[in-house]
Amino acid sequence: MIYDTAIIGTGPAGLSAALNLKIHQKKFIWLGSKALSDKISKAEKISNYPGLEDISGQEFSRRLSRQARDMGLEITEQMVNSIVSMGDYYALLAGNEFFQAKSIILATGVINKTALPGEERLLGKGVSYCATCDGPLYKGKTVAVICNASRFEHEVEYLSEIAGKVYYIPTYKAAVERENIEKVADRVVEIVGEEKAEGIRLSGGEVINVDGVFCLRNSVALSALLPKLTAENGHIMVDRKMATNLPGIFAAGDCTGRPYQYAKAVGEGNVAAHSVIEYLAEKRSDT
Amino acid sequence: MIYDTAIIGTGPAGLSAALNLKIHQKKFIWLGSKALSDKISKAEKISNYPGLEDISGQEFSRRLSRQARDMGLEITEQMVNSIVSMGDYYALLAGNEFFQAKSIILATGVINKTALPGEERLLGKGVSYCATCDGPLYKGKTVAVICNASRFEHEVEYLSEIAGKVYYIPTYKAAVERENIEKVADRVVEIVGEEKAEGIRLSGGEVINVDGVFCLRNSVALSALLPKLTAENGHIMVDRKMATNLPGIFAAGDCTGRPYQYAKAVGEGNVAAHSVIEYLAEKRSDT
Repeated sequence: MIYDTAIIGTGPAGLSAALNLKIHQKKFIWLGSKALSDKISKAEKISNYPGLEDISGQEFSRRLSRQARDMGLEITEQMVNSIVSMGDYYALLAGNEFFQAKSIILATGVINKTALPGEERLLGKGVSYCATCDGPLYKGKTVAVICNASRFEHEVEYLSEIAGKVYYIPTYKAAVERENIEKVADRVVEIVGEEKAEGIRLSGGEVINVDGVFCLRNSVALSALLPKLTAENGHIMVDRKMATNLPGIFAAGDCTGRPYQYAKAVGEGNVAAHSVIEYLAEKRSDT
Repeated sequence: MIYDTAIIGTGPAGLSAALNLKIHQKKFIWLGSKALSDKISKAEKISNYPGLEDISGQEFSRRLSRQARDMGLEITEQMVNSIVSMGDYYALLAGNEFFQAKSIILATGVINKTALPGEERLLGKGVSYCATCDGPLYKGKTVAVICNASRFEHEVEYLSEIAGKVYYIPTYKAAVERENIEKVADRVVEIVGEEKAEGIRLSGGEVINVDGVFCLRNSVALSALLPKLTAENGHIMVDRKMATNLPGIFAAGDCTGRPYQYAKAVGEGNVAAHSVIEYLAEKRSDT
């Protein structure tokens, strides 16, 4: 089965796109956190969203969740690890599941993370974004896990059950403790290695030698996911139709640039969905 | 007093811009109908506006009105008849009031009306958009009034008190009846005249000779208001910042093109407001 589109991201832009695609009865997969946007629930008060006066972030988030549920929208809680163009459609690896889609809407939010030096070059060569997928390759070996959210802790635990030794570099107050897990307080500044990942360099300069490096982050660096995507200052370049430079790939919300605002995000999600609908119609008439 | 900006239009795009400019404490004038958007209140059910599930148009409209009121936003219920660039700022004639603004946000909605042949050429030469302003010039004379909404009926009555004879061409089911008002059922296809307006041509070919022509429409044709504005297929061309080709003039909502959607409109209004804020900051640092 090839989906009409895959929406990546469950913030307001992703939701807005999903609502419209649902109404237009498109077949799509919606990938991201079931909790929708962390950022929203943490917002104290939203004063400039038309139609919802002085609403708290939590209440806004509840409304969006309820609306998604009532509209029958389903979220697949997997992180996208890889996107490959298959000519006429795209193949996505999300968690350890594989999806195919004719088009993609990137609604990934502000892209805080840019890839580490060495990360893109060594991706698939000892660098992995998915413990479930690639963990088994490191039986009894030494791995480093760079992790930026507690939701990946079960993956860290999973790796500790396979690997002989895990260097654990969380960027938040982490809770995982195991005998073969060594927490590293220092920051990772580089993934080193020639043909394959051989170690991580810490901000102090020290290199820890490892057999593999897992980067478990809320958002994969888009530059690693789609190296040919045109971006500027960390923002995906789009036109007025929210089309990126890659055919069938659209983007919406904070990932396309400032202002980082809910109203902008829902507007762009709406436009991206309509552009996907147009794109699919054109594709159909081509064949 | 020169306003920071003038927002033209009180639909969702205009409201979204106004909310943001208010929060940023900009001085602005907001021109349009106090009833906000007619189109919204007539919408039966809105299913794709994030945060407001299956809301009726009337309820959405009520919410927007309440939000505008609670945020202290004031609407000046005047139609803009003319915009003139004064180099560093713009002069606007709205109704019979005169305003000055450093920037403008056009949020005028779908532009159904394009100007009639002859209308732009003869504007100010017998063609007028404002009965209150130009009515007195036609004492005892014959005028034609092309009118597309009942809210202008008092202006038609006003003209009938001044003029000797009024040809009244409403595009809706009109109620005005006066002894010197002759209702014309046919459609106007052209305003004729060389140096000044001399008559109106009806779709049947017949020409009615008049001294002046009043076009009272919910929205003035933007091509007449801002002849140098770049438009395509009746849509104002904007970039990702909602900037038009004219310095300091931004546009948002349905007037910039499809999809004609509330989410898009509020998103674009938000972006336009932020672009105005940036524009004003740059202007200030220039001087």
